[in-house]
Amino acid sequence: MVNWFLIMSKNWKFVKEKDQMFERAFGRDHYWHYHPESIEGAESYMVKVVVPEGDGHNFHVHPKMHEILYILKGRAEQWIEDEMQFLEAGDSVYIDADVVHATFNAGVGELEFLAILSPPNGWRAGTVDVSKELPYSGYRLKK
Amino acid sequence: MVNWFLIMSKNWKFVKEKDQMFERAFGRDHYWHYHPESIEGAESYMVKVVVPEGDGHNFHVHPKMHEILYILKGRAEQWIEDEMQFLEAGDSVYIDADVVHATFNAGVGELEFLAILSPPNGWRAGTVDVSKELPYSGYRLKK
Repeated sequence: MVNWFLIMSKNWKFVKEKDQMFERAFGRDHYWHYHPESIEGAESYMVKVVVPEGDGHNFHVHPKMHEILYILKGRAEQWIEDEMQFLEAGDSVYIDADVVHATFNAGVGELEFLAILSPPNGWRAGTVDVSKELPYSGYRLKK
Repeated sequence: MVNWFLIMSKNWKFVKEKDQMFERAFGRDHYWHYHPESIEGAESYMVKVVVPEGDGHNFHVHPKMHEILYILKGRAEQWIEDEMQFLEAGDSVYIDADVVHATFNAGVGELEFLAILSPPNGWRAGTVDVSKELPYSGYRLKK
């Protein structure tokens, strides 16, 4: 609820699981809790990401926003630059702005994780796909 | 891993559940993933909070940092200023800086939630307890 009548800058919002904003993405589904289209004036956004078996979010970078990922379910093959670790429920990773990263489902069944994105100046900070660029295009283990 | 040798401003950190930083707090336990003592130069911090049955984090405010709470397990009686909602696993709330809030365990067994805190200028933004002040001291339902 936005309390515009009290003080314009005081803002809060409850989101129940049933009210998540659905967005189909390439290789994964997004269930947004806080997205520029659903909350005004927020300084962080949050999305629950569901990745089908064998799928993932290929190497990309957010030049200006930092990110935290927290694994809710399943097993992730998490890349940060040239470092890879397998993450499971309860594990997380902190990623500064401008650090290349990728998350693949390395388990059986769905992978679910939360991503909390904090852009400094609104959403335009954006995302750049680098999955076809060296060295990132060569990092993944052969399956 | 901090890649000081590459570019000083590029920073990332993996945290496995077993490596969480434990801190006992009043009415709850903290399992920190990212805390000023465990990561340098971060712009957001994250803690998993475990609240025993009947306990909670009484009314407080972070004058300068915004926060996202995400319920992992159990049932929360979540207050934001004068608004209360019950939250369960998969629900969340976004809280701007300077908005008074409180979280109590309203269920059977433990309540677990993630708190992601983003201070603008380091950790000193801090927390102020207002649980003894009006109107907050009168908000809670009689049990």
